[in-house]
Amino acid sequence: MLPDRAVRWLGQRIGRVGVDRGHKVHPVPNLTDSTLAEPAREALAAVVGAENVLVDGPERLARASGLSYLDLLRRQRPQPGDPVPAPDAVVLPADPDQVQAVLDACVRHDVGVVPFGGGTSVVGGVSALRGDKAAVIALDLARLDELVSVDPVSHLAVLQAGVRGPEAERLLGEHGFTLGHVPQSFERATIGGFAATRSAGQASSGYGRFEDMVAGVRLATPRGEWRLGVAPASAAGPDLRQLAVGSEGTLGVITEVALRVRPVPRERRYEGYVVDGWAAGAETVRQLAQEHVLADVTRLSDVDETAVSFALSGGWKTALLRGYLAARGMKRPCLLIVGWEGDVKARQRRTAAVLRRTGALRIGRALGETWRHGRFNGPRQRDVLMGLGVCVETLETAAYWSNLDDLHDAVRAALTASLGRAIVMCHVSHAYETGASLYFTVLTSRDDADPVGQWQRAKRAASEAIVGLGTISHHHAVGVDHAPYLPAEIGALGVDVLRAAKHAVDPTGILNPGKLIG
Amino acid sequence: MLPDRAVRWLGQRIGRVGVDRGHKVHPVPNLTDSTLAEPAREALAAVVGAENVLVDGPERLARASGLSYLDLLRRQRPQPGDPVPAPDAVVLPADPDQVQAVLDACVRHDVGVVPFGGGTSVVGGVSALRGDKAAVIALDLARLDELVSVDPVSHLAVLQAGVRGPEAERLLGEHGFTLGHVPQSFERATIGGFAATRSAGQASSGYGRFEDMVAGVRLATPRGEWRLGVAPASAAGPDLRQLAVGSEGTLGVITEVALRVRPVPRERRYEGYVVDGWAAGAETVRQLAQEHVLADVTRLSDVDETAVSFALSGGWKTALLRGYLAARGMKRPCLLIVGWEGDVKARQRRTAAVLRRTGALRIGRALGETWRHGRFNGPRQRDVLMGLGVCVETLETAAYWSNLDDLHDAVRAALTASLGRAIVMCHVSHAYETGASLYFTVLTSRDDADPVGQWQRAKRAASEAIVGLGTISHHHAVGVDHAPYLPAEIGALGVDVLRAAKHAVDPTGILNPGKLIG
Repeated sequence: MLPDRAVRWLGQRIGRVGVDRGHKVHPVPNLTDSTLAEPAREALAAVVGAENVLVDGPERLARASGLSYLDLLRRQRPQPGDPVPAPDAVVLPADPDQVQAVLDACVRHDVGVVPFGGGTSVVGGVSALRGDKAAVIALDLARLDELVSVDPVSHLAVLQAGVRGPEAERLLGEHGFTLGHVPQSFERATIGGFAATRSAGQASSGYGRFEDMVAGVRLATPRGEWRLGVAPASAAGPDLRQLAVGSEGTLGVITEVALRVRPVPRERRYEGYVVDGWAAGAETVRQLAQEHVLADVTRLSDVDETAVSFALSGGWKTALLRGYLAARGMKRPCLLIVGWEGDVKARQRRTAAVLRRTGALRIGRALGETWRHGRFNGPRQRDVLMGLGVCVETLETAAYWSNLDDLHDAVRAALTASLGRAIVMCHVSHAYETGASLYFTVLTSRDDADPVGQWQRAKRAASEAIVGLGTISHHHAVGVDHAPYLPAEIGALGVDVLRAAKHAVDPTGILNPGKLIG
Repeated sequence: MLPDRAVRWLGQRIGRVGVDRGHKVHPVPNLTDSTLAEPAREALAAVVGAENVLVDGPERLARASGLSYLDLLRRQRPQPGDPVPAPDAVVLPADPDQVQAVLDACVRHDVGVVPFGGGTSVVGGVSALRGDKAAVIALDLARLDELVSVDPVSHLAVLQAGVRGPEAERLLGEHGFTLGHVPQSFERATIGGFAATRSAGQASSGYGRFEDMVAGVRLATPRGEWRLGVAPASAAGPDLRQLAVGSEGTLGVITEVALRVRPVPRERRYEGYVVDGWAAGAETVRQLAQEHVLADVTRLSDVDETAVSFALSGGWKTALLRGYLAARGMKRPCLLIVGWEGDVKARQRRTAAVLRRTGALRIGRALGETWRHGRFNGPRQRDVLMGLGVCVETLETAAYWSNLDDLHDAVRAALTASLGRAIVMCHVSHAYETGASLYFTVLTSRDDADPVGQWQRAKRAASEAIVGLGTISHHHAVGVDHAPYLPAEIGALGVDVLRAAKHAVDPTGILNPGKLIG
């Protein structure tokens, strides 16, 4: 729960919020009826066992969609005459062979398939769309939960698609290895989902994006199994692994992923710095990236995000910090979290030298550790805020350094113009030599008359501001929400190429209808 | 020229060699007649000007093929009744728009197009195959020779496809930047070719493979222009840049490439080390890679390559070095070249610490600098050897660390079994956390009765040894020579996907017929 003081502060900033603005959660909103024909159900049961073909409402509802603001809104505030589109059955195969056999059955019975991992998509990636199919199943990969193999010499591990973040770390940890992949969805999201969506973790500056870790993929497709990845690098034509990674279930169901792993770091250290103003902060991160001294975690909050963070945490420590910053002339403080994992001392020294040079002010470990311990809390905070009547959502993009300020300004302006009184805050969480990501969080008072339209309009405005300056998604993927903006990014030809590739592996179009290429 | 002593030594190792084994170079071997129809020629001339449509023999012959041993053999020893397949015309567009217009004309007249950069392919990538087309042109990109733009903030530069390696460095150097991409083909090869073939340079351990540098590509395709790359990283679906990179002219003609550049290093330092035996050497390189302290150049020769290097250089310095190594118990010396570019001191210290730990023996800078100064000499040495009647060729692969020894043994065994008396030597020139490349050089006495068959059989044996253990090419690409082995590596589905992608952008199949997917 948010302290009263924080609720009051929020109300002053964005308008009416409070417990009276909450809404009852309907445990089972209206659900479309299952349209899975009996022969199809029997064929699926023959593959996975009848007990692994679930058709009751709550099971179907739990795999009906992901975790975007609109997904949650639709579930929590079902509208009469607007039933949640749900899969007609949930199918739980035990292993890659069963996944293949499920696809074969779905081809024979012309049933759509939505691969389902942690269900944490915030772009509609797991929504139960059926395209031109009479029925659609959620193919839940939860039972593909094994560490298949570890090659300690090559620093490679093969994990099944359904393994969740913490379990992956536990399994690898037994062999002394880590993936180091910690997106905010870490606790629920899966290996298959990370690969299917080109996920990036909070420590991706050090460990790389998920696609950088992928050495090989095993996919089930309507035309049979497809395996990719025989060497660390290759010139044997285009890198088709990079076609499978990010294919969001449209080119196959990822069943296993061979991943580059690293030894578990012996030590970790997180620190907080403050820089004066967004421009100076971005410049600092750029220099760190271009001089190859980025910390594994490098996260710069803009002025608004820093102010919100101070306001919501409150207390005497924050007051002290504010005083300290004011005394040092920090008029527009921007928080910079840096974290090293492994070889801390030497690397910290190199990062710190650049930070000193650029005038960043070291605050210390407490701030860094506070961030680290709270770093998966975003989704829970959002639930609390939604309960207070707050429209709260995030969106993200990335651009080359020379576009970054324009992009920051344009998205902020678009969101503010659309939403009126709102907090629009932003951070850089992923930096590269050539550019960085921008991650926006938006808070405004929910428009109860048209809560869906309120956010859809704002999201459209932000997306249109992004096109031409950056990518429509740095790590949330395309799903349904970003599909309209994909042609502007990869060209009509790019969409045609994806469509052609899909037709080659999925001629009848059963795989994740309506996603990615619409 | 090779000293007599070296020629004698070679003869002892591989059989008869010498100047009497040379062959006359025919300046213009038999050439197929040009079959370009007059309307097509006029259409092309209308785009680029008549003076940029070349149809005379020497111009066509110069773009007839690349620089593989068999390419050279075929040109130097033309067989009666076996004319060199040559393009029917050489077309030299001035800019990306003209490239697009040339493709449009070729679609209208159903003429095949072989994009031609430096012509350094060693896998048949620029051979003038025509597939089902009545005529084929070599689309020579030499006039696309500009640095289009530099973004010093984002460390990005856009270069046209026809810019050769040294010119790229000169143009970027004026802005204080470097690509750091130095494959052995550096002096002749072009930006477009580097991208089209997923090139890797000798310093790729530090600067990355060429695909790691590619931020964006501009392609001309039969269906119009295609531009990719709006951000340093993206989750907006599969990374189609990685489909364009390595497409070898089959998915479009690359006209411009946006590349990540780095400041010109203030200092460079190259050193020579020696390790005792191949296994110890590979283990050393593995530890360097996995501890993230690889030098920018890291090149480990096996016992045979080291022995050949000592034998061919000869002289008192080598004798001294041999004595020094013997006195230190180095029974099976393997040469390890390490080179740092920029921030030399600190990085050298970190690399050296690991080398000391693993027992590598530091020889000093002279050896490193000797290698650096001779590093583009390979092609010239090959010409000399061919003139002495030596069958000399290279081939390369890459594998995960746990497969590397098996791969090394298997390829050596296959080549030796096929060729009989031969020198088969190898080095690791590109190392990754999960594995490394292997680059083999083969020397044997030419079989004058069947010189083509002699190498074709050996190459087939080596390729079959590679399949299942590593990739069919780490940086030479697929072209014609490796196409038969691609399905084993990316699956029949992978080939279907590439074919479908090609059909989407090139419905009539004019682009580089017969390459990559055969």
